[in-house]
Amino acid sequence: MERKEISKAVIGRLPRYYRYLGELIEEGVERISSNELSARMKVTASQIRQDLNNFGGFGQQGYGYNVKYLYSEISKILGIDQQHNVIIIGAGNLGQAIANYTNFERRGFVIKGMFDINPKLIGLVIRGIEIRSVDDLETFIKDNEIQIAALTIPKTKAPEIADRLVNAGIKAIWNFAHTDLVVPDDVVVENVHLSESLMRLSYRVCSMQDQGDGKGEKSSK
Amino acid sequence: MERKEISKAVIGRLPRYYRYLGELIEEGVERISSNELSARMKVTASQIRQDLNNFGGFGQQGYGYNVKYLYSEISKILGIDQQHNVIIIGAGNLGQAIANYTNFERRGFVIKGMFDINPKLIGLVIRGIEIRSVDDLETFIKDNEIQIAALTIPKTKAPEIADRLVNAGIKAIWNFAHTDLVVPDDVVVENVHLSESLMRLSYRVCSMQDQGDGKGEKSSK
Repeated sequence: MERKEISKAVIGRLPRYYRYLGELIEEGVERISSNELSARMKVTASQIRQDLNNFGGFGQQGYGYNVKYLYSEISKILGIDQQHNVIIIGAGNLGQAIANYTNFERRGFVIKGMFDINPKLIGLVIRGIEIRSVDDLETFIKDNEIQIAALTIPKTKAPEIADRLVNAGIKAIWNFAHTDLVVPDDVVVENVHLSESLMRLSYRVCSMQDQGDGKGEKSSK
Repeated sequence: MERKEISKAVIGRLPRYYRYLGELIEEGVERISSNELSARMKVTASQIRQDLNNFGGFGQQGYGYNVKYLYSEISKILGIDQQHNVIIIGAGNLGQAIANYTNFERRGFVIKGMFDINPKLIGLVIRGIEIRSVDDLETFIKDNEIQIAALTIPKTKAPEIADRLVNAGIKAIWNFAHTDLVVPDDVVVENVHLSESLMRLSYRVCSMQDQGDGKGEKSSK
């Protein structure tokens, strides 16, 4: 009962609040009203108040939100005030893109190692991170207290690797492989299915065209 | 009125149906009941029936769904029965990962060109796709009937490039830059914000730990 149950929809929106608050801090803004934040984020002020009220009264009448305080509270809620040790499995372009993205590190996600089966990649170093053989996976996870594994490998290899990760004690998989992983209840999987995102885009473009053609209406500029 | 209004939630699930149906086709399965599909997809059979009923009665009592027919109908709904010409702006690791992903092409997304500002990258060829200077962006879009632009560039550059894309007639932006783009109403933007996905994963791991610690309950195996 210490932690209130928060709806998935609200959680889904928190990282976006976090991003906007981070930008406000960079701009030197110390406090902001729900109305101002609403104008920036293109979300209604009442939605903002409702969302942020989930975490206790951060906002004060007539004062607005203390940006730094709210930023830090959201970071605690998201668990990004702590360090998370991460490994990347699959050192191809996508794995390397993630390894090169320094923003993750600033949010506490420290990439400790990369793994591949390709002998041409093993031994290479990306931004200080060595690419190792997947044979060393289990030992490395235990020795380096790894919590999160990013899977940037083809879907055919993903189930086997996921099983090995779970057996080695990994509790969180960031899955880019185009398949749904089967894992125990106490392991969380966050999927990034790029093809599905591209199909949603395609659907939306086609619907937009249908609207334009079918009804003879042009959307106004 | 030709096309029924379909809820965002259903559209969001269609690419996943499409993926499972594609796998069934590969396995040589010709028809499937909502119960069998339910067991595979870990979605209730009633949800499946409800979702797929949106597109008219594909399923027949006692027969189930004709896999190929349903696959092809969903592909029409998603607009992936047509060819979409795509460009990638930003030829770094992430842009190259997308260019190398042949699955997109099989779904009708044909990558026609890549663009960068880095002279070291300009002129290189990735899987037959030349990396060009962003100076040539507008001409290339017009000459090659480009519909979709993938933005794999830093957030600081994204707004300016998005404006140029919109002015050149692009109607769909697949945005990997960590910022929200401001575009006219007739342009669709599909965001892939990797940091936000990683934060949701972090939240879920922390909640799982809280549950384990706070209530003294261990999740059962």
